[in-house]
Amino acid sequence: MPPNTGIKTKTVLQFRKGQKQEKADLVACEEPLELKLGFGPQGQREHRSLSITMRTPGQDEALALGFLFTEGIIGRASEVVGVRHIGQALSPESAKNILLVELSPDTPVDFEQLNRHFYTSSSCGVCGKASIERLSTVNLYYPQRGFPVFNPVQIQAFPHHMSARQVLFEQTGGIHAAASFDENGQLMLLREDVGRHNAMDKLIGETMRTGGFPMRNQAIMVSGRLSFELVQKAAMAGVPLLAAVGAPSSLAVELAESHGMTLIGFLRGERFNVYCGAERVRA
Amino acid sequence: MPPNTGIKTKTVLQFRKGQKQEKADLVACEEPLELKLGFGPQGQREHRSLSITMRTPGQDEALALGFLFTEGIIGRASEVVGVRHIGQALSPESAKNILLVELSPDTPVDFEQLNRHFYTSSSCGVCGKASIERLSTVNLYYPQRGFPVFNPVQIQAFPHHMSARQVLFEQTGGIHAAASFDENGQLMLLREDVGRHNAMDKLIGETMRTGGFPMRNQAIMVSGRLSFELVQKAAMAGVPLLAAVGAPSSLAVELAESHGMTLIGFLRGERFNVYCGAERVRA
Repeated sequence: MPPNTGIKTKTVLQFRKGQKQEKADLVACEEPLELKLGFGPQGQREHRSLSITMRTPGQDEALALGFLFTEGIIGRASEVVGVRHIGQALSPESAKNILLVELSPDTPVDFEQLNRHFYTSSSCGVCGKASIERLSTVNLYYPQRGFPVFNPVQIQAFPHHMSARQVLFEQTGGIHAAASFDENGQLMLLREDVGRHNAMDKLIGETMRTGGFPMRNQAIMVSGRLSFELVQKAAMAGVPLLAAVGAPSSLAVELAESHGMTLIGFLRGERFNVYCGAERVRA
Repeated sequence: MPPNTGIKTKTVLQFRKGQKQEKADLVACEEPLELKLGFGPQGQREHRSLSITMRTPGQDEALALGFLFTEGIIGRASEVVGVRHIGQALSPESAKNILLVELSPDTPVDFEQLNRHFYTSSSCGVCGKASIERLSTVNLYYPQRGFPVFNPVQIQAFPHHMSARQVLFEQTGGIHAAASFDENGQLMLLREDVGRHNAMDKLIGETMRTGGFPMRNQAIMVSGRLSFELVQKAAMAGVPLLAAVGAPSSLAVELAESHGMTLIGFLRGERFNVYCGAERVRA
């Protein structure tokens, strides 16, 4: 596969109306990119890290330009005098993971001011692999291999149980949800939020508060897609099975795999795809 | 409306099969929450700002607990010895916008270590209103009132034009897109990314690079929902009309309104809702 196509191939186990079948599936590539700025007058140039974003590789220069402009750091394209990838590639398909953007010597950059106006959204780390490794060192609760087992028929019913409880979604049509299920497929708790990671944090936080922790015999299902960040949060809570209505990213699958979790995507109608940990899914 | 219901009412103009009608619509509430930590041994307690997240008000304590745990800052619920809202409420419906979380004196917190592991995701600011005001001061390109005009029939065709060009979505079913359209409803540029704000940054950045800037006579359409962040980015680029397949949040509508933009949600099939700036939508 040529580099920077933004796609990776994964082998999945597809469950469909009671049948299962192995097939190849394409997932969107998700990889971290660190933006570094080169700025200041000639002779006193500084290089500073500005931000890290989880993005699909490709068009990194346009991404940087748009980000710098929409965040109010530059006012026009001509203030960027050079852009190049440094650092290292994470995989044969990926670009290098640091983009150095050289600003014109007379573009003012006030890092104190900037830091107050960015907001942190989640954990991550400078690179996917480093983040996956770091998780292994801080994590308290690993899921047990092959335990518990969830019945495919019960898994198919997750979305049905959720929609009955998505009160805010019912009224607005525009809010994410995360729900936990016990080994018998019964919905335990559901939380809603405009932010997907917030819905997950609320679910996990409430479970901690009410003594249901760690979540080693529970499954979590989320609306929308599965990013690295959501898998990371579920992994921290010891959740063995994470499912979503939408597709997982490449890094979501890789993190779940390295952590011994079961990852399910496209859970809708009478079908779903198991991306890893299929031993937990059987009648 | 009681506080913290997570919902606000907005008046919208609904276009449906050529007819238009004013109606009340419920949108999911989006507001910033700043997390502050109280930590350190007795007598040397420190209070430090940890993060700001755009969330739906309600269950803030569970949100904080889940966030602190999934980010590896606490290991169990008992390390949090007190939680209270400080700061000010942004509206009658909202909770106060700062949550002070007091950690047990023996919970170690290493801010240097933490900052390296959080990643910034976007602009924002400590509070929605402050952010909206700040945008007014940094923004270079205001849209012109009532200009340009987009035909409702052309607007309805946006999703159709987009799906023909969403190459990565076609293959993976799991990636966001942002596209620009000219005054005649012709698609100009489309960019895809696992992150919605990245797709928008790539679109705006590429437009800057190729000389189409500012985007004062272009519309942008995005897959998914409309958050504050996406409206902020479009506003920076001077975009007069922003549309989405999904619903806008409360803060998305308020920012677009204050900025004289046209905001469209639920653009699918033969219908869409105009949340503000309806004077730009006519045959």
